[in-house]
Amino acid sequence: MDLQKYLDEKRQLVEQSMADLVPMANDLHPDLVRHIESMRYSLFAGGKRVRPILCIASCEAVAGDARVVLPVAVALECIHTYSLIHDDLPAMDDDELRRGKPTNHILYGEAGAILAGDGLLTMAFELLSSNLLSTIPADKRLKIINIIATGVGSLGMVGGQALDIACEGKDIDITTLRQIHSRKTGALITASVQSGAVIGGADPKQLADLTTYGEKIGLAFQIVDDLLNVEGTTEQLGKAAGSDADRCKATYPAIFGIEKTKLMAEETIAEALAALDTFAERGAPLRELATYIISRNK
Amino acid sequence: MDLQKYLDEKRQLVEQSMADLVPMANDLHPDLVRHIESMRYSLFAGGKRVRPILCIASCEAVAGDARVVLPVAVALECIHTYSLIHDDLPAMDDDELRRGKPTNHILYGEAGAILAGDGLLTMAFELLSSNLLSTIPADKRLKIINIIATGVGSLGMVGGQALDIACEGKDIDITTLRQIHSRKTGALITASVQSGAVIGGADPKQLADLTTYGEKIGLAFQIVDDLLNVEGTTEQLGKAAGSDADRCKATYPAIFGIEKTKLMAEETIAEALAALDTFAERGAPLRELATYIISRNK
Repeated sequence: MDLQKYLDEKRQLVEQSMADLVPMANDLHPDLVRHIESMRYSLFAGGKRVRPILCIASCEAVAGDARVVLPVAVALECIHTYSLIHDDLPAMDDDELRRGKPTNHILYGEAGAILAGDGLLTMAFELLSSNLLSTIPADKRLKIINIIATGVGSLGMVGGQALDIACEGKDIDITTLRQIHSRKTGALITASVQSGAVIGGADPKQLADLTTYGEKIGLAFQIVDDLLNVEGTTEQLGKAAGSDADRCKATYPAIFGIEKTKLMAEETIAEALAALDTFAERGAPLRELATYIISRNK
Repeated sequence: MDLQKYLDEKRQLVEQSMADLVPMANDLHPDLVRHIESMRYSLFAGGKRVRPILCIASCEAVAGDARVVLPVAVALECIHTYSLIHDDLPAMDDDELRRGKPTNHILYGEAGAILAGDGLLTMAFELLSSNLLSTIPADKRLKIINIIATGVGSLGMVGGQALDIACEGKDIDITTLRQIHSRKTGALITASVQSGAVIGGADPKQLADLTTYGEKIGLAFQIVDDLLNVEGTTEQLGKAAGSDADRCKATYPAIFGIEKTKLMAEETIAEALAALDTFAERGAPLRELATYIISRNK
């Protein structure tokens, strides 16, 4: 299969849905228009749409319909975007650049950025509980809301960020590093794959396999991110290269060295691929996505 | 009825559920324990539990069971607490005191407070989608998730806070002030009443009446808050008296004067009570709660 074509098609599908489901609303109070603008600024500031595409590919891997799962895909991107906006805040990672553009608080101020994040997180749950998904049985919809909320809550993504912030400048062990990654990055990626699978009608074995796949690529994603942060240029990354290491943030290369880290990334992807054994042709996009994660350069 | 006894009983019920449903988890990484501690600090820092009690009273007004609706009540208090934590941040209202205690960021730092808020908001949706509510039909559970998410999102509570922040120091008209209040305070109060009604099994007429009741007491609540902020002492309020006026934040007394504002509060409560006409004896706690809102002194 032609992965680039697949990614382009799905990205367009996702971005069209994002435009439809998170519309501008110019008839509101100007300050409210600006608030919605601030959410849309970060939502449409580029990005590979990895999580929505994983959700769609997972749905299709179990013979589900991509069009049906689109509101879920958009909700996942809303959540991902909120997490980036809050992570970039001065009180957190204090980043001024994201994907080569000014971060949200640079343009809309700290209060505006906090509220843009809060609004996007809440919007995800509005979408997930809305009539847009009315063709899906209500119990499945509740299940994915729970999967996603648990994945991005205090024992998932938010907890991972709390750990990450608390661990800055400290010597941390590999167990803690793994925990930071699995919560901060892995949990939402896994939830993306799982929610697509549930909407697509996965049986318990398929859901378990896709969960393993999600966990493994989530881990690989973070390992590769760490490598790129050491090796990449600012131009490639769209943010300051080496910025994590500057803050003494723990990374895989810092603990294991670059060569061993690369090997670990490859092994992790191999495990992800093994979990797709039973999916035959329908699993092709997920396989290609796993390979893409390890070979990307930004 | 004895309102104080009713409030005390329900508050105890709510706080016991909060302790059960948002437990400490000491076996986690110490930094994650601290994150959960930070959420619990604000959750258990006092508060009248008005929104959970309204939810329960509304559920009982349509002959529903208070015990069944408790996870919803807890979710509402999680959301209310998150909104207070984020509102108090230095980038927002910059308050150091809340209910007579240090605000979250004073104790846990700005990053910690942002994440405590994010965690509590997400936890609300974890609770609402969890098996704790499995006795409620799935479509009703989806309906209250949508009511609550819409009420606290960008066109509701978050949007109200965005408007409020943007309007500071500006001359604003009464239409804008009403909009700030109805979104910032009214929307969550109305959602609390509505979600209790839906869980309790309200018919469409009952839901419409309780919605009117919620809107009216939400408005009255904010008007009284404005009055207390002008007239109250720091000791009564647990925060700096007059702090809103100091920041030139628009208030009802600033626009209408104290006497006319008091009259408006009374008229609004009368409208709330009128909406309860058909509820007979079961509506008694909601009636008493409306009266309590206007007579409270903190």
